[in-house]
Amino acid sequence: MAKEPKQLDELFHDTLKDIYYAEKKILSALPKMAKAAQNEELTAAFEKHQAETEGQIARLEQVFELIEQKPQGKKCAAIEGILEEGQEIIKEYKGSPALDAGLVSSAQAVEHYEIARYGTLRTWAEELGLGDAAKLLQETLDEEEATDQALTEIAESVVNQEAQSEAA
Amino acid sequence: MAKEPKQLDELFHDTLKDIYYAEKKILSALPKMAKAAQNEELTAAFEKHQAETEGQIARLEQVFELIEQKPQGKKCAAIEGILEEGQEIIKEYKGSPALDAGLVSSAQAVEHYEIARYGTLRTWAEELGLGDAAKLLQETLDEEEATDQALTEIAESVVNQEAQSEAA
Repeated sequence: MAKEPKQLDELFHDTLKDIYYAEKKILSALPKMAKAAQNEELTAAFEKHQAETEGQIARLEQVFELIEQKPQGKKCAAIEGILEEGQEIIKEYKGSPALDAGLVSSAQAVEHYEIARYGTLRTWAEELGLGDAAKLLQETLDEEEATDQALTEIAESVVNQEAQSEAA
Repeated sequence: MAKEPKQLDELFHDTLKDIYYAEKKILSALPKMAKAAQNEELTAAFEKHQAETEGQIARLEQVFELIEQKPQGKKCAAIEGILEEGQEIIKEYKGSPALDAGLVSSAQAVEHYEIARYGTLRTWAEELGLGDAAKLLQETLDEEEATDQALTEIAESVVNQEAQSEAA
Protein backbone atom coordinates (compact mmCIF):
# COMPACT_ATOMS: atom_id res chain seq x y z
CA MET A 1 0.00 0.00 0.00
CA ALA A 2 1.31 3.46 -0.88
CA LYS A 3 2.32 5.84 1.91
CA GLU A 4 -0.33 8.46 2.73
CA PRO A 5 0.67 11.80 1.19
CA LYS A 6 1.64 14.53 3.64
CA GLN A 7 -1.11 16.93 4.71
CA LEU A 8 -1.33 20.61 5.62
CA ASP A 9 -0.60 19.91 9.31
CA GLU A 10 2.72 18.36 8.28
CA LEU A 11 3.52 21.25 5.95
CA PHE A 12 2.80 23.60 8.88
CA HIS A 13 5.14 21.59 11.11
CA ASP A 14 7.89 21.44 8.45
CA THR A 15 7.69 25.21 7.88
CA LEU A 16 7.73 25.84 11.63
CA LYS A 17 11.00 23.91 11.84
CA ASP A 18 12.35 25.94 8.90
CA ILE A 19 11.68 29.32 10.55
CA TYR A 20 12.85 28.06 13.98
CA TYR A 21 16.21 27.20 12.40
CA ALA A 22 16.22 30.55 10.57
CA GLU A 23 15.49 32.58 13.74
CA LYS A 24 18.39 30.94 15.56
CA LYS A 25 20.74 31.74 12.68
CA ILE A 26 19.47 35.33 12.63
CA LEU A 27 20.03 35.60 16.40
CA SER A 28 23.69 34.69 15.95
CA ALA A 29 24.12 37.04 12.95
CA LEU A 30 22.63 40.16 14.57
CA PRO A 31 25.50 40.94 17.00
CA LYS A 32 27.93 40.85 14.03
CA MET A 33 25.70 43.26 12.11
CA ALA A 34 25.35 45.56 15.14
CA LYS A 35 29.14 45.58 15.54
CA ALA A 36 29.77 46.26 11.85
CA ALA A 37 27.29 49.17 11.62
CA GLN A 38 28.87 52.61 11.59
CA ASN A 39 25.71 54.58 12.38
CA GLU A 40 24.64 54.49 16.05
CA GLU A 41 20.96 54.47 15.19
CA LEU A 42 21.49 51.39 13.01
CA THR A 43 23.49 49.61 15.74
CA ALA A 44 20.63 50.34 18.17
CA ALA A 45 18.06 48.98 15.68
CA PHE A 46 20.01 45.72 15.32
CA GLU A 47 20.34 45.40 19.12
CA LYS A 48 16.63 46.01 19.58
CA HIS A 49 15.82 43.39 16.97
CA GLN A 50 18.15 40.93 18.70
CA ALA A 51 16.03 41.17 21.87
CA GLU A 52 12.85 40.83 19.79
CA THR A 53 14.26 37.75 18.04
CA GLU A 54 14.72 36.05 21.42
CA GLY A 55 11.03 36.65 22.11
CA GLN A 56 10.11 35.36 18.64
CA ILE A 57 12.01 32.13 19.28
CA ALA A 58 10.14 31.73 22.59
CA ARG A 59 6.83 32.25 20.71
CA LEU A 60 7.78 29.55 18.19
CA GLU A 61 8.48 27.20 21.10
CA GLN A 62 4.94 27.91 22.37
CA VAL A 63 3.57 27.06 18.90
CA PHE A 64 5.49 23.75 18.91
CA GLU A 65 3.92 23.05 22.31
CA LEU A 66 0.43 23.87 20.99
CA ILE A 67 0.81 21.22 18.26
CA GLU A 68 2.38 18.82 20.77
CA GLN A 69 5.77 18.70 19.09
CA LYS A 70 9.27 19.18 20.41
CA PRO A 71 10.90 22.45 19.23
CA GLN A 72 13.27 21.41 16.49
CA GLY A 73 15.01 23.18 13.61
CA LYS A 74 15.42 21.98 10.05
CA LYS A 75 18.23 23.34 7.86
CA CYS A 76 16.89 26.33 5.94
CA ALA A 77 18.89 26.93 2.74
CA ALA A 78 17.11 30.24 2.15
CA ILE A 79 18.29 31.94 5.34
CA GLU A 80 21.80 30.50 4.87
CA GLY A 81 21.94 32.17 1.47
CA ILE A 82 20.47 35.47 2.66
CA LEU A 83 22.88 35.71 5.61
CA GLU A 84 25.83 34.70 3.43
CA GLU A 85 25.12 37.72 1.22
CA GLY A 86 25.10 39.90 4.35
CA GLN A 87 28.52 38.60 5.38
CA GLU A 88 29.86 39.36 1.89
CA ILE A 89 28.67 42.96 2.24
CA ILE A 90 30.45 43.31 5.60
CA LYS A 91 33.65 41.99 4.04
CA GLU A 92 33.48 43.87 0.74
CA TYR A 93 32.33 47.24 2.11
CA LYS A 94 34.39 47.40 5.32
CA GLY A 95 35.60 50.97 5.74
CA SER A 96 33.24 52.25 3.04
CA PRO A 97 30.61 54.93 3.63
CA ALA A 98 28.22 52.59 1.77
CA LEU A 99 28.60 49.81 4.38
CA ASP A 100 25.56 50.84 6.43
CA ALA A 101 23.35 51.06 3.33
CA GLY A 102 24.43 47.51 2.49
CA LEU A 103 23.74 46.31 6.03
CA VAL A 104 20.22 47.76 5.95
CA SER A 105 19.65 46.08 2.59
CA SER A 106 20.76 42.70 3.97
CA ALA A 107 18.64 43.11 7.08
CA GLN A 108 15.59 43.95 4.97
CA ALA A 109 16.10 40.79 2.89
CA VAL A 110 16.06 38.85 6.18
CA GLU A 111 12.92 40.67 7.36
CA HIS A 112 11.10 39.97 4.10
CA TYR A 113 11.95 36.28 4.32
CA GLU A 114 10.45 36.22 7.79
CA ILE A 115 7.40 38.24 6.72
CA ALA A 116 6.70 35.68 3.97
CA ARG A 117 7.10 32.71 6.31
CA TYR A 118 5.10 34.14 9.24
CA GLY A 119 2.29 35.28 6.91
CA THR A 120 2.05 31.76 5.51
CA LEU A 121 2.20 30.08 8.93
CA ARG A 122 -0.42 32.44 10.41
CA THR A 123 -2.83 31.66 7.51
CA TRP A 124 -2.25 27.90 7.79
CA ALA A 125 -2.74 28.02 11.59
CA GLU A 126 -6.13 29.66 10.98
CA GLU A 127 -7.06 27.04 8.36
CA LEU A 128 -6.06 24.27 10.78
CA GLY A 129 -8.18 25.75 13.57
CA LEU A 130 -5.12 26.62 15.66
CA GLY A 131 -6.36 30.00 16.89
CA ASP A 132 -3.80 30.43 19.69
CA ALA A 133 -0.93 29.58 17.35
CA ALA A 134 -2.29 32.03 14.73
CA LYS A 135 -2.33 34.79 17.36
CA LEU A 136 1.30 34.16 18.37
CA LEU A 137 2.42 34.08 14.73
CA GLN A 138 0.54 37.32 14.01
CA GLU A 139 2.33 39.04 16.92
CA THR A 140 5.69 38.14 15.42
CA LEU A 141 4.55 39.12 11.93
CA ASP A 142 3.60 42.58 13.26
CA GLU A 143 7.06 42.95 14.84
CA GLU A 144 8.83 41.94 11.62
CA GLU A 145 6.82 44.43 9.59
CA ALA A 146 7.58 47.19 12.12
CA THR A 147 11.31 46.31 11.98
CA ASP A 148 11.27 46.46 8.18
CA GLN A 149 9.58 49.87 8.33
CA ALA A 150 12.09 51.16 10.91
CA LEU A 151 14.97 50.03 8.69
CA THR A 152 13.47 51.87 5.70
CA GLU A 153 13.29 55.04 7.79
CA ILE A 154 16.90 54.71 8.95
CA ALA A 155 18.02 54.07 5.39
CA GLU A 156 16.17 57.05 4.01
CA SER A 157 17.13 59.50 6.73
CA VAL A 158 20.73 58.68 7.46
CA VAL A 159 22.42 55.77 5.83
CA ASN A 160 22.00 56.70 2.20
CA GLN A 161 23.28 60.24 2.78
CA GLU A 162 26.35 58.83 4.50
CA ALA A 163 26.89 56.39 1.69
CA GLN A 164 27.25 59.21 -0.77
CA SER A 165 29.66 61.26 1.29
CA GLU A 166 33.32 60.94 0.47
CA ALA A 167 35.23 58.24 2.32
CA ALA A 168 36.96 59.56 5.46
CA MET B 1 48.32 53.68 -0.96
CA ALA B 2 45.18 51.93 0.21
CA LYS B 3 42.45 51.14 -2.30
CA GLU B 4 39.50 53.56 -2.26
CA PRO B 5 36.56 51.99 -0.42
CA LYS B 6 33.57 51.12 -2.56
CA GLN B 7 30.78 53.70 -2.77
CA LEU B 8 26.98 53.63 -3.06
CA ASP B 9 27.12 53.55 -6.88
CA GLU B 10 29.13 50.34 -6.68
CA LEU B 11 26.75 48.86 -4.11
CA PHE B 12 23.90 49.72 -6.48
CA HIS B 13 25.70 48.02 -9.36
CA ASP B 14 26.55 44.92 -7.25
CA THR B 15 22.94 44.59 -6.09
CA LEU B 16 21.68 45.04 -9.64
CA LYS B 17 23.86 42.09 -10.70
CA ASP B 18 22.46 40.07 -7.77
CA ILE B 19 18.81 40.59 -8.74
CA TYR B 20 19.58 40.11 -12.47
CA TYR B 21 21.01 36.68 -11.65
CA ALA B 22 18.03 35.98 -9.35
CA GLU B 23 15.43 36.94 -12.00
CA LYS B 24 17.01 34.57 -14.52
CA LYS B 25 16.93 31.73 -11.98
CA ILE B 26 13.29 32.54 -11.18
CA LEU B 27 12.45 32.54 -14.90
CA SER B 28 13.75 29.00 -15.21
CA ALA B 29 12.00 27.83 -12.01
CA LEU B 30 8.53 29.17 -12.87
CA PRO B 31 7.60 26.61 -15.60
CA LYS B 32 8.42 23.80 -13.13
CA MET B 33 6.18 25.40 -10.52
CA ALA B 34 3.37 25.92 -13.06
CA LYS B 35 3.64 22.27 -14.10
CA ALA B 36 3.66 21.01 -10.50
CA ALA B 37 0.62 23.07 -9.41
CA GLN B 38 -2.63 21.10 -9.13
CA ASN B 39 -4.97 24.07 -9.07
CA GLU B 40 -5.60 25.70 -12.47
CA GLU B 41 -5.79 29.19 -11.02
CA LEU B 42 -2.34 28.70 -9.46
CA THR B 43 -0.87 27.36 -12.72
CA ALA B 44 -2.26 30.45 -14.49
CA ALA B 45 -0.75 32.75 -11.83
CA PHE B 46 2.69 31.18 -12.32
CA GLU B 47 2.39 31.46 -16.11
CA LYS B 48 1.38 35.11 -15.84
CA HIS B 49 4.32 35.81 -13.55
CA GLN B 50 6.66 34.10 -16.01
CA ALA B 51 5.69 36.61 -18.69
CA GLU B 52 6.08 39.45 -16.19
CA THR B 53 9.52 38.18 -15.19
CA GLU B 54 10.67 38.45 -18.81
CA GLY B 55 9.61 42.10 -18.76
CA GLN B 56 11.38 42.64 -15.44
CA ILE B 57 14.62 41.25 -16.87
CA ALA B 58 14.28 43.64 -19.82
CA ARG B 59 13.78 46.55 -17.37
CA LEU B 60 16.94 45.54 -15.49
CA GLU B 61 18.82 45.58 -18.80
CA GLN B 62 17.59 49.14 -19.32
CA VAL B 63 18.88 50.08 -15.86
CA PHE B 64 22.30 48.59 -16.68
CA GLU B 65 22.26 50.72 -19.82
CA LEU B 66 21.36 53.85 -17.83
CA ILE B 67 24.45 53.37 -15.64
CA GLU B 68 26.53 52.51 -18.71
CA GLN B 69 27.25 48.95 -17.67
CA LYS B 70 26.88 45.65 -19.47
CA PRO B 71 24.02 43.48 -18.11
CA GLN B 72 25.71 40.86 -15.99
CA GLY B 73 24.62 38.51 -13.21
CA LYS B 74 26.43 37.71 -9.99
CA LYS B 75 25.75 34.46 -8.14
CA CYS B 76 23.01 35.13 -5.58
CA ALA B 77 23.16 32.60 -2.74
CA ALA B 78 19.85 33.88 -1.35
CA ILE B 79 17.75 32.99 -4.39
CA GLU B 80 19.56 29.67 -4.75
CA GLY B 81 18.51 28.79 -1.21
CA ILE B 82 14.94 30.03 -1.62
CA LEU B 83 14.43 28.09 -4.87
CA GLU B 84 16.07 24.99 -3.39
CA GLU B 85 13.40 24.99 -0.66
CA GLY B 86 10.71 25.22 -3.35
CA GLN B 87 12.15 22.19 -5.14
CA GLU B 88 12.10 20.23 -1.86
CA ILE B 89 8.40 21.04 -1.45
CA ILE B 90 7.65 19.76 -4.99
CA LYS B 91 9.52 16.54 -4.18
CA GLU B 92 8.21 15.97 -0.67
CA TYR B 93 4.57 16.91 -1.29
CA LYS B 94 4.06 15.36 -4.75
CA GLY B 95 0.59 13.81 -4.83
CA SER B 96 -0.41 15.55 -1.60
CA PRO B 97 -3.39 17.91 -1.31
CA ALA B 98 -0.99 20.25 0.54
CA LEU B 99 1.32 20.61 -2.49
CA ASP B 100 -0.31 23.78 -3.81
CA ALA B 101 -0.21 25.44 -0.38
CA GLY B 102 3.51 24.67 -0.30
CA LEU B 103 4.03 26.04 -3.80
CA VAL B 104 2.30 29.31 -2.90
CA SER B 105 4.45 29.56 0.20
CA SER B 106 7.64 29.08 -1.85
CA ALA B 107 6.52 31.60 -4.45
CA GLN B 108 5.77 34.17 -1.75
CA ALA B 109 9.25 33.71 -0.29
CA VAL B 110 10.61 34.48 -3.78
CA GLU B 111 8.34 37.54 -4.13
CA HIS B 112 9.40 38.90 -0.75
CA TYR B 113 13.07 38.54 -1.67
CA GLU B 114 12.40 40.55 -4.81
CA ILE B 115 10.31 43.15 -2.94
CA ALA B 116 13.22 43.70 -0.52
CA ARG B 117 15.78 44.04 -3.32
CA TYR B 118 13.71 46.28 -5.63
CA GLY B 119 12.70 48.52 -2.70
CA THR B 120 16.37 48.98 -1.84
CA LEU B 121 17.45 49.54 -5.45
CA ARG B 122 14.67 52.06 -6.07
CA THR B 123 15.68 54.06 -2.96
CA TRP B 124 19.38 53.99 -3.92
CA ALA B 125 18.57 55.04 -7.49
CA GLU B 126 16.77 58.09 -6.09
CA GLU B 127 19.70 58.93 -3.78
CA LEU B 128 22.08 58.63 -6.73
CA GLY B 129 19.95 60.95 -8.85
CA LEU B 130 19.04 58.17 -11.30
CA GLY B 131 15.40 59.16 -11.76
CA ASP B 132 14.75 57.02 -14.85
CA ALA B 133 16.23 53.96 -13.19
CA ALA B 134 14.15 54.61 -10.04
CA LYS B 135 11.00 54.71 -12.17
CA LEU B 136 11.78 51.38 -13.87
CA LEU B 137 12.58 49.75 -10.53
CA GLN B 138 9.36 51.10 -9.02
CA GLU B 139 7.34 49.57 -11.88
CA THR B 140 8.79 46.15 -11.13
CA LEU B 141 8.30 46.63 -7.39
CA ASP B 142 4.61 47.36 -8.00
CA GLU B 143 4.30 44.16 -10.07
CA GLU B 144 6.00 42.05 -7.40
CA GLU B 145 3.70 43.42 -4.71
CA ALA B 146 0.64 42.71 -6.87
CA THR B 147 1.87 39.15 -7.49
CA ASP B 148 2.36 38.59 -3.77
CA GLN B 149 -1.16 39.88 -3.10
CA ALA B 150 -2.63 37.65 -5.85
CA LEU B 151 -0.88 34.61 -4.35
CA THR B 152 -2.32 35.41 -0.92
CA GLU B 153 -5.80 35.54 -2.43
CA ILE B 154 -5.35 32.20 -4.23
CA ALA B 155 -4.00 30.64 -1.03
CA GLU B 156 -6.87 31.88 1.07
CA SER B 157 -9.65 31.07 -1.38
CA VAL B 158 -8.65 27.74 -2.81
CA VAL B 159 -5.34 26.19 -1.95
CA ASN B 160 -5.69 25.94 1.79
CA GLN B 161 -9.12 24.35 1.56
CA GLU B 162 -7.77 21.77 -0.87
CA ALA B 163 -4.83 21.10 1.41
CA GLN B 164 -7.16 20.05 4.19
CA SER B 165 -9.31 17.74 2.09
CA GLU B 166 -8.51 14.06 2.20
CA ALA B 167 -6.04 12.80 -0.37
CA ALA B 168 -7.70 11.45 -3.49
